[in-house]
Amino acid sequence: MTNLNQLTKNEVFMAFASYTTILISKMMFMSMATAFYRVTRKVFANPEDCSQFGKGENAKKYLRTDDRVERVRRAHLNDLENIVPFIGIGLLYSLSDPDLSTALLHFRLFVGARIYHTIAYLTPLPQPNRGLAFFVGYGTTFSMAYRLLKNNLYL
Amino acid sequence: MTNLNQLTKNEVFMAFASYTTILISKMMFMSMATAFYRVTRKVFANPEDCSQFGKGENAKKYLRTDDRVERVRRAHLNDLENIVPFIGIGLLYSLSDPDLSTALLHFRLFVGARIYHTIAYLTPLPQPNRGLAFFVGYGTTFSMAYRLLKNNLYL
Amino acid sequence: MTNLNQLTKNEVFMAFASYTTILISKMMFMSMATAFYRVTRKVFANPEDCSQFGKGENAKKYLRTDDRVERVRRAHLNDLENIVPFIGIGLLYSLSDPDLSTALLHFRLFVGARIYHTIAYLTPLPQPNRGLAFFVGYGTTFSMAYRLLKNNLYL
Repeated sequence: MTNLNQLTKNEVFMAFASYTTILISKMMFMSMATAFYRVTRKVFANPEDCSQFGKGENAKKYLRTDDRVERVRRAHLNDLENIVPFIGIGLLYSLSDPDLSTALLHFRLFVGARIYHTIAYLTPLPQPNRGLAFFVGYGTTFSMAYRLLKNNLYL
Repeated sequence: MTNLNQLTKNEVFMAFASYTTILISKMMFMSMATAFYRVTRKVFANPEDCSQFGKGENAKKYLRTDDRVERVRRAHLNDLENIVPFIGIGLLYSLSDPDLSTALLHFRLFVGARIYHTIAYLTPLPQPNRGLAFFVGYGTTFSMAYRLLKNNLYL
Repeated sequence: MTNLNQLTKNEVFMAFASYTTILISKMMFMSMATAFYRVTRKVFANPEDCSQFGKGENAKKYLRTDDRVERVRRAHLNDLENIVPFIGIGLLYSLSDPDLSTALLHFRLFVGARIYHTIAYLTPLPQPNRGLAFFVGYGTTFSMAYRLLKNNLYL
């Protein structure tokens, strides 16, 4: 157990842990946003979810899609598609002994880009706000992946 | 290589590994459930998947959506949206030297909640069964995230 | 920090890191494929994405779905549903001190199967090409999960 304490003395890993926790909390917030719009707009995907609003045909009218709900769901899926790669690559990158300031730059850029991406998606802001946020995050993850493959390839 | 063996002497990490393996196996079972309903109900998303049932227009009638298949797919996506955060936060939490009994409580609550969530989604059980299962799992992950940010913030 | 260097002396973990980085890069490529088809075929999900092609009703005609775009998105979601379990199980498996040649066999089979799966999905190749690729990847992950639960169960 003692050696695990070494991990908490590794500053890059500590920073990775903090930024990842923030990112995942942000991603989990999307579930709440979806639930909020589903309840306030009465838009449901499952018959059992809207049974409180009436029986039979009366409840079925709430089984529909809604622009606002679909927008939050797309933002959530986009988070999954981009934050999951960051967590996987970032964990391996953190353990590959990178320079602390370089690592912090990557983590901060990514977290900033993804928070801005969510704001741009949900407001919505005109393009290219969301597109730029996407590409900054994408490039950051790719930059870590490139460093990993260049320095530590073992196939 | 010797120091890795320390990890297998860390009881919290061992417990995290076991519960995560069970959770991921459960999540992978959703792919089988989708495949099962697609084949038994002849509901496909790709033309090449139903070419065995006829050619041209005859096969196209199987390119449709089905309540049962969509329900399994929603349950699967909900698993991804909730189990992925648990794995990321839980891994960092396990390495942050928490109390063993507190950690076990978190892991067991989460695994139980997600298994119950799947049962409630696929049966389907009336609400609030599924909603409660969702919030117990969500709260468990959030409780670990809170502890991580409170004790180990490094930005 | 010294003990982390042990991790980079662990050959199984090094191999896992390299194959995972390749897999995640492949998965991230799906975002580019989606963006490519959306732009070249003018198929968008958000009004702000197609505002450059006209105003009001004129732009709305680009808010549609397209077989090609939906195919890439299904392939991307299938990647998420299968590569995420591999990363989670594979990380724990790598840390459980497996035989190097057995571990390499698992990693190579999985990466090969998922690359072939993407080719089979996007071409598209007739079934059972995609189905077989899916099951090889699925079986590989399950084999690692089975070994983990058999040797290291701690509940």
